[in-house]
Amino acid sequence: MSRVAYVNRRYVPFTAAGVHVEDRGYQFADGVYEVIAIHRGRMIDLDRHMARLDRSLGEIALAWPMVPQAMTVVMGELVHRNRITGSGMLYLQVTRGVARRAHPFPPHARPALVMTARILPPFDRNGAGQGIAVITTDDIRWKRVDIKSISLLPNVLAKQAAVDVGAYEAWMVGIDGLVTEGTASNAWIVTDDGALVTRQPAEEILNGVTRLAVLDLARETGLRIEERPFSVAEAQAAREAFLTSTTSTVRPVVRLDDAVIGDGTVGPVTSRLLDLYFSHLEGDL
Amino acid sequence: MSRVAYVNRRYVPFTAAGVHVEDRGYQFADGVYEVIAIHRGRMIDLDRHMARLDRSLGEIALAWPMVPQAMTVVMGELVHRNRITGSGMLYLQVTRGVARRAHPFPPHARPALVMTARILPPFDRNGAGQGIAVITTDDIRWKRVDIKSISLLPNVLAKQAAVDVGAYEAWMVGIDGLVTEGTASNAWIVTDDGALVTRQPAEEILNGVTRLAVLDLARETGLRIEERPFSVAEAQAAREAFLTSTTSTVRPVVRLDDAVIGDGTVGPVTSRLLDLYFSHLEGDL
Repeated sequence: MSRVAYVNRRYVPFTAAGVHVEDRGYQFADGVYEVIAIHRGRMIDLDRHMARLDRSLGEIALAWPMVPQAMTVVMGELVHRNRITGSGMLYLQVTRGVARRAHPFPPHARPALVMTARILPPFDRNGAGQGIAVITTDDIRWKRVDIKSISLLPNVLAKQAAVDVGAYEAWMVGIDGLVTEGTASNAWIVTDDGALVTRQPAEEILNGVTRLAVLDLARETGLRIEERPFSVAEAQAAREAFLTSTTSTVRPVVRLDDAVIGDGTVGPVTSRLLDLYFSHLEGDL
Repeated sequence: MSRVAYVNRRYVPFTAAGVHVEDRGYQFADGVYEVIAIHRGRMIDLDRHMARLDRSLGEIALAWPMVPQAMTVVMGELVHRNRITGSGMLYLQVTRGVARRAHPFPPHARPALVMTARILPPFDRNGAGQGIAVITTDDIRWKRVDIKSISLLPNVLAKQAAVDVGAYEAWMVGIDGLVTEGTASNAWIVTDDGALVTRQPAEEILNGVTRLAVLDLARETGLRIEERPFSVAEAQAAREAFLTSTTSTVRPVVRLDDAVIGDGTVGPVTSRLLDLYFSHLEGDL
């Protein structure tokens, strides 16, 4: 079966899904995006993704390419046309459209909208529950990473640095020595006295949709939650650590650079949140 | 006459010049670029552009899409096919190619190469010599702006902020209060004691090809040159100020935020460097 993409008001075969070379997404990274998980054919946390897209668009003064309600119809149709009845993901990006290359906003360009969707192996509670290694690296990104922009070259380079040493992710560290987040995920720890800690949303992190979902779940369990930054040393001394992202769900971190986290196995808080998140994916909560 | 672009080993009509939506330039800003001025059909400072491209590629671990010698042949052919016998510009970008979306470097993707060229109005010594206004803004870019990457969203936003208030450019200022550079140009001042000052090349600025050419020309005139940062206050109190870029050449700055530079007219050092740069464009030097 052939995959289908959506490019500027048309459904097209994925292999033929193209944009003009002067699309400002290609020349200026002048655009924003979302990645939405699909489970049992259903888009997960759709409202939160749309709300974040609205915020990202507003922060870079980019208009919606179509009204949000129409966009969600297209998204559903794209899931359908790609016959994603199990697990998968939908990717969408909005750019400032095609215009003769010049830095300022083009006066007459129409925002461009591109969407792709693909089938993925089923989200797997046991697979997600395997502990992973994370490295730390300097956070060299721009100062508005709260905007989910496609300006991702620093994230790519940091992620590759992790892959180069066999790690799953890189946690980025500001000049103040505090962890901001992963290249494509949010960072969490469980302190020795049992508090769940993750950095508060501000311009230094991207406020992940999975982060928000897990915060909700953690609140319901009565866990003590501290939204604040933490240092690499505090993370290395933590009882547990994990990361969250749309495609990684909840992923236990058992090593941070040279330090083993806790006893090197998946801790009870992470395990509980994993269970809850998978229930959330199932729509049971 | 129809314009022609070069996209991944093929000359194609400009209007049909497209890339796949999963080109990493479009989804990750995972690429680098050059803009080369054309005067009397000749590419200006070609060797320096190719040397900088080599450096940019190396810094993000991206291979040349073809050997440099072959690329310059293609560049010349593209100028020819677009019949640019007078002034114009050639734009080229190299990205990490097309691959299923994932942050790490794709193991099998081939680097993508896109080039466009266009006729421009003749470079105009008198037009360039009109003084322009510049605003200042926080430099919120990533920490490796010495790499000429397409990760340009912060530059776009800063340039638009300038345009919004009728200014030509925005000079970006680090947290230390020192000017880094413009959104698409380097920044220069002439101090009260006649020294020519521009920031030294390091990770905080893009080492402009026009910057290097003007430095050469200034050295030949015997001007005292200081490669160092300067503050906004020092720039506002300077005798002269100007900016340099491939497409703007040398452009006198007569206003910086609310301050008039010097007496608000184009100063003798700037004027002299403009003359010399236009002689350089003519190949007279």
